[in-house]
Amino acid sequence: MSLDPVLSRIDADLPAAMDRLFDLLRIPSISTDPAYKAECDRAADWLVADLASFGIKASKRQTPGHPMVVGHVAGDGPHVLFYGHYDVQPVDPLDLWDRDPFDPAIEETAKGKVIRARGASDDKGQLMTFVEACRAWSAENGALPCSITFFFEGEEESGSPSLIPFLKENAEELKADVALICDTGLFESKVPSIMTQLRGLCGEEITLTGPSKDLHSGMYGGPSMNPLRVLTRILGNLHNDQGRIQVPHFYDGVPELEPEIAKQWQALGFDHSAFLGDVGLSEPAGEQERSALEMIWSRPTAEINGMIGGYTGEGFKTVLPSKARAKVSFRLVGQQDPHAIRENFRTWVQAQLPADVTAEFHAHGASPASQMATTHPAFEAARGVLGAEWGHEAAFTGCGGSIPVAGYFKSILGMDTMLVGWAKDDDQIHSPNEKYDVESFHKGIRSWARILDVISK
Amino acid sequence: MSLDPVLSRIDADLPAAMDRLFDLLRIPSISTDPAYKAECDRAADWLVADLASFGIKASKRQTPGHPMVVGHVAGDGPHVLFYGHYDVQPVDPLDLWDRDPFDPAIEETAKGKVIRARGASDDKGQLMTFVEACRAWSAENGALPCSITFFFEGEEESGSPSLIPFLKENAEELKADVALICDTGLFESKVPSIMTQLRGLCGEEITLTGPSKDLHSGMYGGPSMNPLRVLTRILGNLHNDQGRIQVPHFYDGVPELEPEIAKQWQALGFDHSAFLGDVGLSEPAGEQERSALEMIWSRPTAEINGMIGGYTGEGFKTVLPSKARAKVSFRLVGQQDPHAIRENFRTWVQAQLPADVTAEFHAHGASPASQMATTHPAFEAARGVLGAEWGHEAAFTGCGGSIPVAGYFKSILGMDTMLVGWAKDDDQIHSPNEKYDVESFHKGIRSWARILDVISK
Repeated sequence: MSLDPVLSRIDADLPAAMDRLFDLLRIPSISTDPAYKAECDRAADWLVADLASFGIKASKRQTPGHPMVVGHVAGDGPHVLFYGHYDVQPVDPLDLWDRDPFDPAIEETAKGKVIRARGASDDKGQLMTFVEACRAWSAENGALPCSITFFFEGEEESGSPSLIPFLKENAEELKADVALICDTGLFESKVPSIMTQLRGLCGEEITLTGPSKDLHSGMYGGPSMNPLRVLTRILGNLHNDQGRIQVPHFYDGVPELEPEIAKQWQALGFDHSAFLGDVGLSEPAGEQERSALEMIWSRPTAEINGMIGGYTGEGFKTVLPSKARAKVSFRLVGQQDPHAIRENFRTWVQAQLPADVTAEFHAHGASPASQMATTHPAFEAARGVLGAEWGHEAAFTGCGGSIPVAGYFKSILGMDTMLVGWAKDDDQIHSPNEKYDVESFHKGIRSWARILDVISK
Repeated sequence: MSLDPVLSRIDADLPAAMDRLFDLLRIPSISTDPAYKAECDRAADWLVADLASFGIKASKRQTPGHPMVVGHVAGDGPHVLFYGHYDVQPVDPLDLWDRDPFDPAIEETAKGKVIRARGASDDKGQLMTFVEACRAWSAENGALPCSITFFFEGEEESGSPSLIPFLKENAEELKADVALICDTGLFESKVPSIMTQLRGLCGEEITLTGPSKDLHSGMYGGPSMNPLRVLTRILGNLHNDQGRIQVPHFYDGVPELEPEIAKQWQALGFDHSAFLGDVGLSEPAGEQERSALEMIWSRPTAEINGMIGGYTGEGFKTVLPSKARAKVSFRLVGQQDPHAIRENFRTWVQAQLPADVTAEFHAHGASPASQMATTHPAFEAARGVLGAEWGHEAAFTGCGGSIPVAGYFKSILGMDTMLVGWAKDDDQIHSPNEKYDVESFHKGIRSWARILDVISK
């Protein structure tokens, strides 16, 4: 089976591929809003039919929430599972959209043609790049180059409540040699990137209680302990002057960057001034001896995500609050254990409480960092072919956030994941006027054809 | 003119005095709610008529808000101004009241008879103790023992917006030798107290801005500065480990307690364990080398009255907020200059800001502490007679809060104020089921007769 005819077919078929994507984009599959339940169902049906249209036997699989779509095709060579999600984010505020979010259109922009619609980039457009690559391959060669399981979720934008049970219940069916996920982007909108490490997350909510009720600071101010005084003191010491996190044993399991990865990242020439400048900042605020890219991709963080106490309305009230609350989260890397970090954090807070102040803690999720097995041959193979498509050598990159499904594939199915995608920084996912560049869609389809080709050899 | 017949008349007239107070309590003069504007007006009219009923020529004086009531009576001896306020706090939550707040009644309680109604203690009941003392004195002797100006405000519970202009415009008319205010209470509900020092207040709101918009902590966490991190760090250093406030020059102008006052306070045997225990606390949290009573009455404080930033709703969002806000106030004593403290605080905050974080400040009021001129003969005279009425030697006490009108009398009219009152700690002012003990009302009237007697001699 030869690649070039497949690529030619993809080029020729692009208008039809866009028509198919538009059909999918017209379905308002907003998973978080129960009013759109039937639309999510319709999107799943559409995908089943679309896979069937080029010979893939797929089915809609019910869950307590929105259905999964699972399809299989047997072939020679390795067995890959492809994951994408057909649900989309809500569209409000609707008045900030320049067009109906579910009436997709090609728009000409200063940076080229874009597909404008909710879900164009996240994730319907990305999902369809893989489907279209398979369709072209199948049409050209009469078969696919390897065994493929298609696995589409409809709850990714609403916390994936059915994902873990579904993976557990269907582990045997879903297990493949490697998983492919298309839900990420190009580095700085131009360098093809294979994400090889994602940070984990540990969320924690603290409530400090001092006096048993709110007090008047005229009557009680002085002898009465104020829990906001205590909470600011404790959280103000979360970082030292060098940006290091002060919770004991916090850095246990934090690895140094491998030299090969460090070299690749160095070569990316990350413009941290532009990155920070876009949001009104100038100086990297993390550990002072680390590069800004390391700070995002491979170093752990501690952040206060929210804090409230006392009177916060208009004007002024001289209240001494009874309670003060904060939400704190830790981004984790390497082998950091989210449960150990939670315990160490709680112990560290407790040790700093003065008389008359008690702490309650509430856990908000814990997931370890994901380190992809870049030794799996798919990784170097994919990296080798992407440069030809995009005109830039591909890089193994990191991700500051979490993509939980990759972790579940590893922990539940024992399967490594390769994350690669074609989104650009300005796609405005989750925001009004979401778009996906026609270039992303077109080259994305071609990229998957190249990857399928190389990993099948 | 003799005191004893006046006291006997007060005792005999008590039921009628309570009927009159009930008439006033039935008027829902909630000054902060525009819906009750006519009721405030009606309360002012009622007072004018009540003063007229025993020969005091008084009038309702319009302001841009609710009217003042001013009445004068000439007599021998010194000239005193009596201040009270006829407006009351709102009554919500109404469902926590055991009866209609504006349908007063005498209730029997385990601690004795109480007058239950909104305003019974704050301040209609207290105001009427002085009026009833004057009525009895006048009835018994055909005249009052000194020149008296009656000055009643209807905006005390809503920030007194008309007070300063009214004092300035009517300074000549209102100036007297000394002002008497009945809006305070007995120390620990039993010791008659003349408040000789009130703390001042300086309120300040800080808004820190880091990134130009809220960021996702996965994408930006690490290199991006979080203003909550900065605000907790700064405010967490407001106090040192000994409870001392760290703003430079903060203690400039803070006096040591005069030995005579220190002795009186010591003699009060303040039970700080009970005081703190009532609100779930055990250890005085202020400067560790000071007594709890000093902490409230004669030491300055710094408190975070409110703080907010980031996501504070249910669940969790991994946001790096653009802004973090806090409301901070300082209770001031002695000669502390609220404006200097504001400037020093701002400078101190600014000096701690890292790169990329800016601060905006908003002032919320500034009033210096009030130190009453206890050398005025009224003070020792009043202290001398109150013990006979209450069975406890009276004390010169402090007040942790502010009663701004006393400061204005001094600054605008050059007039010293003597603050004395009969409220008890459990009067539930500003709360549901406000009450005033019949004992407070009865002995309060008798106390004013004693004070008028002694200061006229």
